[in-house]
Formats: sequence, structure tokens, C-alpha cells
Amino acid sequence: MTMHQVLEDVLPADHHPRIVCLSGPAFAVEIAQRLPTVVTLACREEAYAISVQATLSCPWFRCYSSTDVIGVEIGGALKNVIAIAVGIGDGQTQGFNSRAALMTRGLAEITRLGVRMGANRSTFLGLSGMGDLLLTCTGDLSRNRRVGLALGQGRELTSILEEVGQVAEGVQTTRAACQLAERLGVDLPISGMVRKVIDGEMSPADAGLALMTRQLRSETD
Amino acid sequence: MTMHQVLEDVLPADHHPRIVCLSGPAFAVEIAQRLPTVVTLACREEAYAISVQATLSCPWFRCYSSTDVIGVEIGGALKNVIAIAVGIGDGQTQGFNSRAALMTRGLAEITRLGVRMGANRSTFLGLSGMGDLLLTCTGDLSRNRRVGLALGQGRELTSILEEVGQVAEGVQTTRAACQLAERLGVDLPISGMVRKVIDGEMSPADAGLALMTRQLRSETD
Repeated sequence: MTMHQVLEDVLPADHHPRIVCLSGPAFAVEIAQRLPTVVTLACREEAYAISVQATLSCPWFRCYSSTDVIGVEIGGALKNVIAIAVGIGDGQTQGFNSRAALMTRGLAEITRLGVRMGANRSTFLGLSGMGDLLLTCTGDLSRNRRVGLALGQGRELTSILEEVGQVAEGVQTTRAACQLAERLGVDLPISGMVRKVIDGEMSPADAGLALMTRQLRSETD
Repeated sequence: MTMHQVLEDVLPADHHPRIVCLSGPAFAVEIAQRLPTVVTLACREEAYAISVQATLSCPWFRCYSSTDVIGVEIGGALKNVIAIAVGIGDGQTQGFNSRAALMTRGLAEITRLGVRMGANRSTFLGLSGMGDLLLTCTGDLSRNRRVGLALGQGRELTSILEEVGQVAEGVQTTRAACQLAERLGVDLPISGMVRKVIDGEMSPADAGLALMTRQLRSETD
């Protein structure tokens, strides 16, 4: 379940249209320093998103409105899986080209799953999709990327989580996303490889090679 | 004119359907080192794109096919404008959040212009769009980003270009994109601010503030 589904599960029905989801590339420490930050506010009822947008926006915090709650949530959750993948590549010093490719094809599979769940494709081009993904994958503050880095350097998940802590939520998200994708019949090649590396079923090097040698295809398939 | 338009201008008509455009996040030095690299091949006739795809692909170089030639070209050209914008922000040490926001909203305006020129929106989610943009904006090898960094630190364009060289093509692309957008009636707020900073009409700090305090809107407008 995504967070708005959890909230709908516990709140009375008349509150449901008022759930507004904030997401985007936003390290809290930078907001506290009043550095420029731009995020998306999504609500099923556009009027509530616009109302919160007017309340929260100021010269260093700019909000865009959206009505695609599920799309905004899926981008925010699944970016952590791709951050692990990028960490695994960086841990093997695979270079900038492959990092950009993992993030781009990672967003393509997040988009496939999101659209299958009813999200709007263009949401993934936005702040909660591409924006949050690139912050998490290239900023050094992400725990999920640190988990991937250690996996790429050949360490085992149990000892990594003892060090990083259990709050690297991408590990659980990877398994949940793979189960969800299987149920919905969506192909998530990168997430699938991350799951195999996490669960010790495949080495990081073999996972990278498997992704590079898949059947050739059109970019929009 | 984009490169395929230049080629069509000089080649006989029977060659036109065979022009295949390669683009994506690909620093040449990494390809030479056989580090994993993934790119897009676009041709009006899909069969030619697929033929070149089969010829060039190998375990460290993976090609996706596309029929959206203009979309692939627009992404490759306009990313240099956003790289200057990101450099201007980094030169003022504006943080990771604003860098992610500039890249995301930068891709949104590239997409608007491209779609207006007949490109497919989903191309900009791909390797020649988001992929190339993030490589150029976060890798340190880009001359355009270096031009932006120096502008953000308060230096003047003439002295910067003497040092970096005239091959920072984003400077010319910025002016061309702004002219094109005006003719087509497309709003390019970030490119417009970059042009003003380049031409000494606005300070980097004022340009950033102007972007943050524009009228609030929906993310997909």
C-alpha cells in the first residue's frame, strides 16, 4: 500500500479527497538553510492541492500542483530501488555513462509500473519522478545508495544493514516492487537484478552484464 | 537547423530516410575504456535504426531504437542550455535541491519545445533526453557547465570564453532556442534567464529569484 492508501484505510471517507501528497527533490537540511527547493503537491481534488500550494510557497520554496497522487507516490518509493542499483554500479566504478543509463532506464521501468497502476506518464518527467530520482542517485546523503555501494564492493547485505541501519527502505521496496510487478505483469529488469543481488542470488558483475545483454528493443517498448 | 535537417539539405533525397541519429549519455573516454554505455538510435525508417542497432550493440555498448529523430536531436542540443543554468546555480552554491529542480523543470521546457516541433513526449524521458541531460549537468567534463559555474561566480562571458574556448556550444544554442521558442510561442523560462545572464542583462542571483517567484502553476502546464 502507498501512504495515501494507508491514510484512506484509517481515516473516515469524507477526509479522503483532502489527502495532499508532497514529494520532490528536497533534502531537509537545505530547506532549513533556505536554499531554493521545488516540489510537487498532489491531491485527487485539484482545489486542495492549489490551496496548499498557495500556503506553502515562498521565495525559496516553490510548489507545483498535480492531481496524480498515485504517480507522485510511486516515483517517491521506487526511486530508492534505482538508488541501490546506481550504488551497485558506482561500487564497481562503472563510470558516469552507465550511471546515467541506469537512472534513465530505471525511470522507464518505474513509469511502466506506475502507468499500469493508473498514474499519468508525464508525472514521471516531473519533480517527484525524475527530480527526486536524480537527487537520491547523485547526492551523497542517501542511505539506499550507500547500501548499493557496499553491495557493489562485494559485501553482504546483513553486515551492510548492521552498519547503515534498517532505515534503508529501498531494500524492502525492491522486494515489494518485484512482487507487485509480477502480479501486474510488468517487466522491471533493473529492480529484478537488484533483488537478486540483495538476496545473494547473483553477483553485481553478472547482474550488470545481464542487463547489458538483454534482447535489443525500442526505447518506448 | 538540427543536424538531420542540415544533412537533408546537402544530401540527395533518396538518402534522407537513411539518416540515423545516435544520442545519449556517452562520454567518449568511457566507451574507449569499454565501460557500460547505453544510447538511442533514431531513424525515420525504423528498419534502418534496427539494422544499425544490431551492428553496433555489444556487451558494453547497448543501443535502443527510436523513430523520433527530431525529439532525439532537440534533447541533445538543448541539454547544453540547462547545463549552463545548473552551472550558474552551482557557482552560487545553491545546493542539490535546486540543481535537481533546474534539471527537472529544464527537461519540462525542452519537452514543451520539442513536442511543439513534432517530437514524441516520451523521447524526453529517454536516454537522449533525461539521460544525456543528467550526464552533462552532473559530470565534470562538460564545457557548458564550466561556463555556467564561472558566470555564477560573477565573471563575464567574454573572459570565460577566452579560457574555455568557443566550443561551449550551449551559449549559441541558448540564443537560438530563445528565438525559436518566441517564433513558436513556447515558454522557456530557464533558457530565457540563462540568455539574460549570458548577455549581462540580469545577475545570476536575480535570475534565480525570478524563477522561484513566477506565478504558481500545475506541473503539467
